[in-house]
Amino acid sequence: MSLLFEPVYTDGIAQISYVIGDTDAGIAAVIDPRRDIEVYLDCARANGVRLAYAIETHIHADYVSGVHELAERAGARIAGPVSDDYGFERRLLRAGERLELGATSLEVLHTPGHTPEHISLLLRDEMQGEAPFGVFTGDTLFNLDVGRPDLLGEEQTRALARQLYSSLFETLVPLGDRIEVYPCHGAGSACGKSIGDRRQSTIGNERVFSDALEPRDEDGFVEWLLQDMPEPPRHYARIKKLNGQGAPLGGGAPIPPPLAPDAFRDAAEDAQVVDVRSILAFGGGHVEGAINIALRDPFANWAGRMLDADRPVLLVAEKAQDAYQAALHLHRIGIDDVAGFLRNGMTDWQNAGLPLERIDQWTVHELDRRRLEQDVLVLDVRSDAEVAKGRVPGARHVFVAHLEQQLEELDREKTIAVYCGTGYRASIAASLLRRHGFAHVANVPGSWTAWQAAGLVV
Amino acid sequence: MSLLFEPVYTDGIAQISYVIGDTDAGIAAVIDPRRDIEVYLDCARANGVRLAYAIETHIHADYVSGVHELAERAGARIAGPVSDDYGFERRLLRAGERLELGATSLEVLHTPGHTPEHISLLLRDEMQGEAPFGVFTGDTLFNLDVGRPDLLGEEQTRALARQLYSSLFETLVPLGDRIEVYPCHGAGSACGKSIGDRRQSTIGNERVFSDALEPRDEDGFVEWLLQDMPEPPRHYARIKKLNGQGAPLGGGAPIPPPLAPDAFRDAAEDAQVVDVRSILAFGGGHVEGAINIALRDPFANWAGRMLDADRPVLLVAEKAQDAYQAALHLHRIGIDDVAGFLRNGMTDWQNAGLPLERIDQWTVHELDRRRLEQDVLVLDVRSDAEVAKGRVPGARHVFVAHLEQQLEELDREKTIAVYCGTGYRASIAASLLRRHGFAHVANVPGSWTAWQAAGLVV
Amino acid sequence: MSLLFEPVYTDGIAQISYVIGDTDAGIAAVIDPRRDIEVYLDCARANGVRLAYAIETHIHADYVSGVHELAERAGARIAGPVSDDYGFERRLLRAGERLELGATSLEVLHTPGHTPEHISLLLRDEMQGEAPFGVFTGDTLFNLDVGRPDLLGEEQTRALARQLYSSLFETLVPLGDRIEVYPCHGAGSACGKSIGDRRQSTIGNERVFSDALEPRDEDGFVEWLLQDMPEPPRHYARIKKLNGQGAPLGGGAPIPPPLAPDAFRDAAEDAQVVDVRSILAFGGGHVEGAINIALRDPFANWAGRMLDADRPVLLVAEKAQDAYQAALHLHRIGIDDVAGFLRNGMTDWQNAGLPLERIDQWTVHELDRRRLEQDVLVLDVRSDAEVAKGRVPGARHVFVAHLEQQLEELDREKTIAVYCGTGYRASIAASLLRRHGFAHVANVPGSWTAWQAAGLVV
Amino acid sequence: MSLLFEPVYTDGIAQISYVIGDTDAGIAAVIDPRRDIEVYLDCARANGVRLAYAIETHIHADYVSGVHELAERAGARIAGPVSDDYGFERRLLRAGERLELGATSLEVLHTPGHTPEHISLLLRDEMQGEAPFGVFTGDTLFNLDVGRPDLLGEEQTRALARQLYSSLFETLVPLGDRIEVYPCHGAGSACGKSIGDRRQSTIGNERVFSDALEPRDEDGFVEWLLQDMPEPPRHYARIKKLNGQGAPLGGGAPIPPPLAPDAFRDAAEDAQVVDVRSILAFGGGHVEGAINIALRDPFANWAGRMLDADRPVLLVAEKAQDAYQAALHLHRIGIDDVAGFLRNGMTDWQNAGLPLERIDQWTVHELDRRRLEQDVLVLDVRSDAEVAKGRVPGARHVFVAHLEQQLEELDREKTIAVYCGTGYRASIAASLLRRHGFAHVANVPGSWTAWQAAGLVV
Repeated sequence: MSLLFEPVYTDGIAQISYVIGDTDAGIAAVIDPRRDIEVYLDCARANGVRLAYAIETHIHADYVSGVHELAERAGARIAGPVSDDYGFERRLLRAGERLELGATSLEVLHTPGHTPEHISLLLRDEMQGEAPFGVFTGDTLFNLDVGRPDLLGEEQTRALARQLYSSLFETLVPLGDRIEVYPCHGAGSACGKSIGDRRQSTIGNERVFSDALEPRDEDGFVEWLLQDMPEPPRHYARIKKLNGQGAPLGGGAPIPPPLAPDAFRDAAEDAQVVDVRSILAFGGGHVEGAINIALRDPFANWAGRMLDADRPVLLVAEKAQDAYQAALHLHRIGIDDVAGFLRNGMTDWQNAGLPLERIDQWTVHELDRRRLEQDVLVLDVRSDAEVAKGRVPGARHVFVAHLEQQLEELDREKTIAVYCGTGYRASIAASLLRRHGFAHVANVPGSWTAWQAAGLVV
Repeated sequence: MSLLFEPVYTDGIAQISYVIGDTDAGIAAVIDPRRDIEVYLDCARANGVRLAYAIETHIHADYVSGVHELAERAGARIAGPVSDDYGFERRLLRAGERLELGATSLEVLHTPGHTPEHISLLLRDEMQGEAPFGVFTGDTLFNLDVGRPDLLGEEQTRALARQLYSSLFETLVPLGDRIEVYPCHGAGSACGKSIGDRRQSTIGNERVFSDALEPRDEDGFVEWLLQDMPEPPRHYARIKKLNGQGAPLGGGAPIPPPLAPDAFRDAAEDAQVVDVRSILAFGGGHVEGAINIALRDPFANWAGRMLDADRPVLLVAEKAQDAYQAALHLHRIGIDDVAGFLRNGMTDWQNAGLPLERIDQWTVHELDRRRLEQDVLVLDVRSDAEVAKGRVPGARHVFVAHLEQQLEELDREKTIAVYCGTGYRASIAASLLRRHGFAHVANVPGSWTAWQAAGLVV
Repeated sequence: MSLLFEPVYTDGIAQISYVIGDTDAGIAAVIDPRRDIEVYLDCARANGVRLAYAIETHIHADYVSGVHELAERAGARIAGPVSDDYGFERRLLRAGERLELGATSLEVLHTPGHTPEHISLLLRDEMQGEAPFGVFTGDTLFNLDVGRPDLLGEEQTRALARQLYSSLFETLVPLGDRIEVYPCHGAGSACGKSIGDRRQSTIGNERVFSDALEPRDEDGFVEWLLQDMPEPPRHYARIKKLNGQGAPLGGGAPIPPPLAPDAFRDAAEDAQVVDVRSILAFGGGHVEGAINIALRDPFANWAGRMLDADRPVLLVAEKAQDAYQAALHLHRIGIDDVAGFLRNGMTDWQNAGLPLERIDQWTVHELDRRRLEQDVLVLDVRSDAEVAKGRVPGARHVFVAHLEQQLEELDREKTIAVYCGTGYRASIAASLLRRHGFAHVANVPGSWTAWQAAGLVV
Repeated sequence: MSLLFEPVYTDGIAQISYVIGDTDAGIAAVIDPRRDIEVYLDCARANGVRLAYAIETHIHADYVSGVHELAERAGARIAGPVSDDYGFERRLLRAGERLELGATSLEVLHTPGHTPEHISLLLRDEMQGEAPFGVFTGDTLFNLDVGRPDLLGEEQTRALARQLYSSLFETLVPLGDRIEVYPCHGAGSACGKSIGDRRQSTIGNERVFSDALEPRDEDGFVEWLLQDMPEPPRHYARIKKLNGQGAPLGGGAPIPPPLAPDAFRDAAEDAQVVDVRSILAFGGGHVEGAINIALRDPFANWAGRMLDADRPVLLVAEKAQDAYQAALHLHRIGIDDVAGFLRNGMTDWQNAGLPLERIDQWTVHELDRRRLEQDVLVLDVRSDAEVAKGRVPGARHVFVAHLEQQLEELDREKTIAVYCGTGYRASIAASLLRRHGFAHVANVPGSWTAWQAAGLVV
């Protein structure tokens, strides 16, 4: 077999990197590698190839790039687009040139929009023929979505949106319907507004299915694009800076130590305690002051937004394996100071007779029953766009990402019942309220989804 | 390398099986295999050996034997002790004879006590010399404990206890201090009173460390042995019968289907719903009628005791992987009718707006504060032996395994706060009470362990 | 994530099966499963889905289908096209109907040509929209190739070729360039003349790159298709019959036993000895009478052609793992009677002082030097089509698959130097000649490839 | 479960390291770690423990220690014996003190002999009781053997042998028969004369089975010990120096690049080409100048002896995976400059029409037939001790490790037939002879083992 084409999907950041090369020639490159790179080394070993290049399509904002790890560990040469925002040496990939990997080659297209320097890479293989058959689109074109242009600050957003229009409609779409699309992200990534759940597509399929590729003029496109755009996650600026400078070597997946209850308690005084258990488990009992960000798919996203990368993190998880997994997610977004995790889940804590906090978990029926009581404040922590589509009658709205800044506006005397789309973000918010001393807080599992399913009044 | 010696530890049943053989000769046997046998096939492949024999040291009561699976799948010949309780053909292993496995051999010792037919197997290897150097003791001798003689019914208990004395002091101990001991169980198994946490030992180390091998006369030994003996798990009789007849082929680890909330609800009408999440998660919110047996080490033991093997089981777990793991544990103890698990943990359920039950999780400090209130009944569900060593003042005692038979004695008007050693069994009990319509039930995480750690009054 | 799309590539048969479904709904199907199905069970477990259907696009000729295994092991329902050649119950998949798998669905297209009953399956996902975006083409359309129509016998070949024309140009191509193509085979499979090395493509890419989709009228297509068509592998008829009847349950990957040299020798009297080591290792020393089919990619193909499925097979390999791998390849093509493998590679054999045969390995330079000597017969064992493009001057041509039938035409007095494309098939032929008593046989590693690389006279 | 006891066996160096600790307390240490440490990190993760210490029992001579890797990667503190030969900071382990790991502890015994600083570690666990139950003996006591005292040079040998006597008979044996023995090496290691194939034993079993522990006085023991002691492998001095200074960080298992035939040929001019295929494969055809050290168990040992650690190494293997495995073995013994491996085994080389060398592989019967011919020189390359027990009549003896120094004594006009114990070392020798221009060389697979099995004249 000659063509090597191995997509590597990374959950949490919903990211797709690619090992691409020629097994006959024994050479390959990795496109947009993540930080924990053993998966690429394993792929190289399984296929008997040298990892000649570690390629970036652009300076990533949502995860720490693994190109430096690959350079260090596998001798790969870093390659990437032309940009002054890069602070390290690399093989420049200029529009029009080709990188040969045996019988396979990558041709560089400049496709600015998500970022100014962004490139896409056309894939050819000699066995197929002269023409390309696929394109690595990075964060330019996703399934059912396109890369957002607003991550570099408001002043650049509209200019980038216009560049994106050109990249999409003048560079990518003209490649033809038949061309396969290999994007850098799948559903769940905040690099698009609402990315689809396919990890691969074709230009033609995107033309048919994607709202973003509806025929519009440039102004219409820009308007469509920026409308309902959620605010950028707070941590993206930090990560982009890190990647521009050249991310520090991490040396592999972290292995934070287990801490006995007493040691954990001591360490917690100067740390952020993150409880990654499910919302019901957190509700049933947790360590005082802990914030609940459950270890499910959006974990990395919300951990990135809610945590301070400069302060140590302590983890509470159902089991050690979950703690390591959470630490790995944090590592991938550049939060490396995980000082430890609570030994043996909550069991050692419980057995030591230490205090447990609870947060009541109300069904939507309970919420509906109690929302008219005088001392209940219903708090909707969804984004503006979600709230615009409907809410629980009488609910107050504060987006979870702004909650800590707006605490003073909430009445501490009342019971606050928090809801979001499903209860996930509401549990983050509820735990924050408790940490800030709000005494009576309830979470609503199912939240807006359940409210609608139950046919309750909107 | 010639000698093949691979212990296989199986958690849940805290069981140790062994692949033993000669890699030069390409032959091996499995001693006391579990029911899901891929692990032995993998070991055979890794070492290039034929699995010639599937050996039982005795008719097991605590897990379904895998000898028939090995016969079917790998062509192994079943071998085991002489006993009329066996209902299938096998190569008989009579006291004194040797089974040759290349340069390795197993010599049969009759060591009755745990059961009448029980054998142990002396291990030799030609490279070492003429003498044996280790012994597979099955359920006769464990680390810090010996096999219990009371599983075949009261009428046989004392006679078996006397046989055990002889097996230990006249057969095994005389082998000499140097002889290595390879038992069938480790800590957590109910085949002994209180097995130690080493999975291997020596005759001499057991002589030094084990209470069971203290010098005593036969009467003294029998008395010591039967004192504080916990009652046999209810399911052992069923499994022993199954193994005696020849366990049905299971065909590998089960893969129960995920069920949507509605389908789950329908199926639950005729099934036992088992929630395997942690006690705090269960407390935070669960499906009505579910019993909580958390997927930790004693899961198989308590599932065996509390569930009806003839009724379908439905599972609730944090994630699909946990449900499969729980189903595997059940499979190993012969509970095969797992009709499905709740799709997507509790999330789909919550999002559908379906009802959630809660059980409050009290710390021991809360328990202590509230136990004097008139409407609180403190219920201790530990075993008699545990209770004998101390309890919460005023606590009523009903062993969890008897709870369903004694419900009528409890006052349904009161809040019942249940505790056990750590909260695990108390959560089983609390969920049972709720299922039987007790309206006000609390569990106490940490339970007696926390009570003592907190220095509360006894 | 909702859409589940997992291609499973199986080397040896260069086959691609697919697990396709909806993880949110917890349901999936397997399309064209292989016989050893653990990989699908693992995929189901990893994604928390029920395997509801085991689907065949057609009656396979090149590998034993795993649909019955999936029915038995996972409770999947078998589904497949309408055909009288099927001898078992299944859910019929009729042209035009849709199989729903949660939000994902498969629409049946009748695409005869490779076989009369062949169906393709259009893939839709609600998240994308109304239209399909991909098609499972089975053996109708591959990368750079199409399914061969000549496997059911000469009398049907041309009719099937015409149906294929219609399936391709009237059913598949009109789906549009954008449609993704998921075929059942990759490079190396004999289900096409010369399949490309991509395992996925698009209708448009195939239109651009594939010779088969060049615009032609029906007659022109049929002529192009049948020209240079290699003869069907001998074992395909046997496997097709097996699959039509319903393949017998295999119960998982085989684990043949290691045999000591003496036992191997005894067993060899009634068995086919297959040496799966490399051609150089075989040349260096081998067991008398062994046929050399090296364990590289075409192994399954040549083992299928050269071996008798009704006689026991004995294996010689560098190590046990290779023997198991070879046995698995044979299992996948329905050769189940692997009686064992030579223990410890050739080492035990060598150490026992047993006879070694050698076959000299000539470079092309040696071949060139010696081909003019009177007693050297140069034998080209490639296919007719390959020979037509050039050969070593003076070489005699007998296709390796016909060699055993044409032995009488070869001069036993001469040294026979055998070559093929690279030496692989030549080593099969050379070993056959030795088995039939030809005393002086040499193999030519590199063969025609090396001859050309060395610029020797053609 | 509390006690964590995980032996890690590393083939090639036949080494056993141990992860030992307390899972309840979440703490563990690694004793005598190898250089590629992922296995310990995986163990730590699986058990939820912190790797607090990386312990050496002595300065190893046969493999590069992984203590520095563990310090760097896992934050483990290095601990080891008192010795001026160490050039780096560490927690000193002085005789008599205890290292606590939760409820588990290690007590230091000074057991000089193999080296002056050597310590053993007594293992206790609170659950068992006060007394120790096992001892990590490092290279002091093995199964059926003891550590050799001659690796630090002749002048120290006898003094160390006397210290060993004391360590064995005054320190270890008095611990009592019951004490379990956990050694640092198994069969195949050159750290003993002839280590047994058990990886664990007891003091009592060694007393019964081991020649080394036969009752002798000190002089008798020293005489017994030094008699028949094979010469120390050449590379041990280099590795001991490296470990004393502190081995350089390796960063994980190496991934040498595949090289195309031309690039390989160029690189070979300044490198040592090592062909790790089996002796028969090497005999069948190989690259000119290659030395054959087959990738079987003694590979690391012979690679260490025969290769120059300061010159680049190029590998030839059946497949890439074997090349990586060989590179890992070399990495473990501090040979890090592996410049690449021949792409695609010998296939690309063959297909390029490049020259192949052959070495005829004679059976012992051929050897016997031809040894009386005038032009055949029979060369025995076994060690002195082996030769002393018998040889092929008329054979000349040169130990393979000395062969390159004694080439001038061999007659280049003759056919040289080389044999050893099984053909493995003879193939090393035969390939060396060919590299040095000897034109007519044959190897004898099976060699002395086959000669005896065939009953040929001695």
